[in-house]
Amino acid sequence: MAVQKPSIPKGTRDFSPMETMRRDYIFDTIRRTFRQNGFLPIETPAMENLSTLLGKYGDEGDKLLFKILNSGDYAANLSPEQMSQASNICEKGLRYDLTVPFARYVVQHQNDIAFPFKRYQIQPVWRADRPQKGRYREFYQCDVDIIGSRSLLNEIELVGIVEKVFDNLGINVTLKLNNRKILFGIAEMMGHADKIVDITVAIDKLEKIGLEAVKAELNARGIDDEAIAKLQPILELNGTTAEKLDTLASLLACSETGLKGIEEMQTVFEYIEAAEIHLSTELDLSLARGLNYYTGAIFEVKANDFAIGSICGGGRYDNLTGIFGMPDVSGVGISFGADRIYDVMSGLNLFPAELSSPTKVLLLNLGKDEAICSLRVANALRKQGIACEVYPDAAKMKKQMEYANRREIPYVAIIGSNELAEGRVTLKNMTSGEQLSIPQSELADNVK
Amino acid sequence: MAVQKPSIPKGTRDFSPMETMRRDYIFDTIRRTFRQNGFLPIETPAMENLSTLLGKYGDEGDKLLFKILNSGDYAANLSPEQMSQASNICEKGLRYDLTVPFARYVVQHQNDIAFPFKRYQIQPVWRADRPQKGRYREFYQCDVDIIGSRSLLNEIELVGIVEKVFDNLGINVTLKLNNRKILFGIAEMMGHADKIVDITVAIDKLEKIGLEAVKAELNARGIDDEAIAKLQPILELNGTTAEKLDTLASLLACSETGLKGIEEMQTVFEYIEAAEIHLSTELDLSLARGLNYYTGAIFEVKANDFAIGSICGGGRYDNLTGIFGMPDVSGVGISFGADRIYDVMSGLNLFPAELSSPTKVLLLNLGKDEAICSLRVANALRKQGIACEVYPDAAKMKKQMEYANRREIPYVAIIGSNELAEGRVTLKNMTSGEQLSIPQSELADNVK
Repeated sequence: MAVQKPSIPKGTRDFSPMETMRRDYIFDTIRRTFRQNGFLPIETPAMENLSTLLGKYGDEGDKLLFKILNSGDYAANLSPEQMSQASNICEKGLRYDLTVPFARYVVQHQNDIAFPFKRYQIQPVWRADRPQKGRYREFYQCDVDIIGSRSLLNEIELVGIVEKVFDNLGINVTLKLNNRKILFGIAEMMGHADKIVDITVAIDKLEKIGLEAVKAELNARGIDDEAIAKLQPILELNGTTAEKLDTLASLLACSETGLKGIEEMQTVFEYIEAAEIHLSTELDLSLARGLNYYTGAIFEVKANDFAIGSICGGGRYDNLTGIFGMPDVSGVGISFGADRIYDVMSGLNLFPAELSSPTKVLLLNLGKDEAICSLRVANALRKQGIACEVYPDAAKMKKQMEYANRREIPYVAIIGSNELAEGRVTLKNMTSGEQLSIPQSELADNVK
Repeated sequence: MAVQKPSIPKGTRDFSPMETMRRDYIFDTIRRTFRQNGFLPIETPAMENLSTLLGKYGDEGDKLLFKILNSGDYAANLSPEQMSQASNICEKGLRYDLTVPFARYVVQHQNDIAFPFKRYQIQPVWRADRPQKGRYREFYQCDVDIIGSRSLLNEIELVGIVEKVFDNLGINVTLKLNNRKILFGIAEMMGHADKIVDITVAIDKLEKIGLEAVKAELNARGIDDEAIAKLQPILELNGTTAEKLDTLASLLACSETGLKGIEEMQTVFEYIEAAEIHLSTELDLSLARGLNYYTGAIFEVKANDFAIGSICGGGRYDNLTGIFGMPDVSGVGISFGADRIYDVMSGLNLFPAELSSPTKVLLLNLGKDEAICSLRVANALRKQGIACEVYPDAAKMKKQMEYANRREIPYVAIIGSNELAEGRVTLKNMTSGEQLSIPQSELADNVK
């Protein structure tokens, strides 16, 4: 066969040992926190029926689905026109997110689930997006949701998870909160309930472009000066979160929905304090994430010390499973962005040093009998929880030492003919260069 | 939108919380052992270029690849005939195993790798096989390989990993060993070096169909009585492994390759003993796994107490990366079959009981102030490593207790108005029904 120069599809990635260990560290930390808070894992297949996926992500999303060609003679009895329709030659697609598969799972297995259902799911998703810096065609999502309960304690539970995950990872963050009902209330108060997105986007731009430019933009979108005048006090809100919510309550007195949203936020902030959650939180009316499907709280987490988009976000939704025939299931969830969290931790040097050298000790190979002795010593070390390896070939010492250096292994243990005869080992600290001769039985204590 | 009855593609699976936790337990145990032995993880994309995958698994394998339809207007400028050729409308496919992606990875990243390269990889693979009991279209492989070294210490390293993984999982196993060079030597000695597969398959059937039937079968495959007479002493080998290998050495004295294989096996068994590996091992000349690509040792692991095919297997290969232009890279590897290991552990009831109830304590919700207190108590428990949750709604006590029962949560903690006032908690043991009132600060000690 002809020799090929190997490559991988654009937008996908190989992960080196170091990258994989760092990613596993993030996933393990997130997973441990989820479990400590009583969340249960599920996994769903990479492939879903296209009928499950299509129509759930808008027209743009449908185009971004990776479709899988039917097996066997997919073209049998199809006209050219039929063949050029993907739905005729593909029945399956790769999952685009974890939300739709979760909804499908809940409906399909509803009789086996104890509600409220606290589930997490950490799996890759695939999108045929144009690849660019920080945007990949295969990436992991880490989703955690509670469904089947409208209690705001669930929001607090998620806030607590945000606190703990980022505490455990060592990242300083701020949690920004908003509520779709408040945004609707603002739009309603302005007489433009249908322009909730335009108005929120304009609020979002306030800091960047200033008050006058925001007004001009709203004008351009058909919102008149009178309505804008009503918005002005909201753009100028200040004080503590509690004060802002009080002012909002008087401004939105005319909107039942707005008042409900304010009350929800008041309760959430009150609970956060009462539950002694020490996370920096703030009300941010410019948060416009997921306005198509969120119905209550909206969350977004930003790293305080590293400039990057949000590293975690979510909100409450009221009809996750309706599309699959199970109405009125309310839920709230958040998703951790593993790739961005990785970038923050790399940028701030937050990964534990151990991750770069999982192997603590390399036992050199100086001949057959010596190597057999090293195998036994290695097994004893592993029983004490010390990761180690024996160099497989009786290669030149220099080559073996180079391997230890390249792998950043902190200790090299040498059993030559003398050490073999005396039951000793020469231990070299690769950082300090220090070398000492000790009984083999004391090796573990010296490298712990 | 019309309501759909949800389902998943045939041959794929949803994993429930219990199944996912049990699978994670298996993966975590395997992964921990790999790391303790100095193996490094890599991950590769689910999608590979079809040019990487095609032609590596035989014609049958090519048919079993899941192919991904090109994005955008895949049919543009194609004739109907062209469209009915998958290679014209698909550039990518889902990986079929972890071996070819590993070979591709090594060639592509060879300058970043410290050889010998000890890598593991735990990821799903996809095959468009006809689904049947125990055979899925999506399943995980757990591969561990050492490449770039011909030392037999690597074989021992893998034997040590087999010992430890199954020790840690609590499964009694036997490791069967064979060597392709011995099989070649047998075929060569019989004058039929080209019929190595037929001869090995016949040896494999010996126990089932008996000596006479084996002879008849070999006759039918064009092997004459004279050659079969030479095979007979091998079929009748007995004694210890060392004795068998000695007898084989005299029988295969004419085959240089055969003698090399015997010497390799002698060394491997000698090392296993010298390294104090306490794993049941046996020489099994009927092992015919991977005769197309293995060149030395062949491994297969069977559970001793549960009837199922092999749960782990592998061998040495000499030209993993040749197809991608990097010749002469020898390696040895094994793969753990997570699905079968799962079945063995389920069948023998080997999963730790904790896996069925990750949440140790459910704190009931008896009203707003009580629930806030419960949130604080829950946080204190979690800080002590105790997984717990607060029921989100102030629902009827009966409903909350039912949830605890369904989730098999062993303890329920009740903070009502009295407990709130007194700083106490009523703790109910859900197994014994026992109930006691204790200070909130003593809760952790009582549920540990």
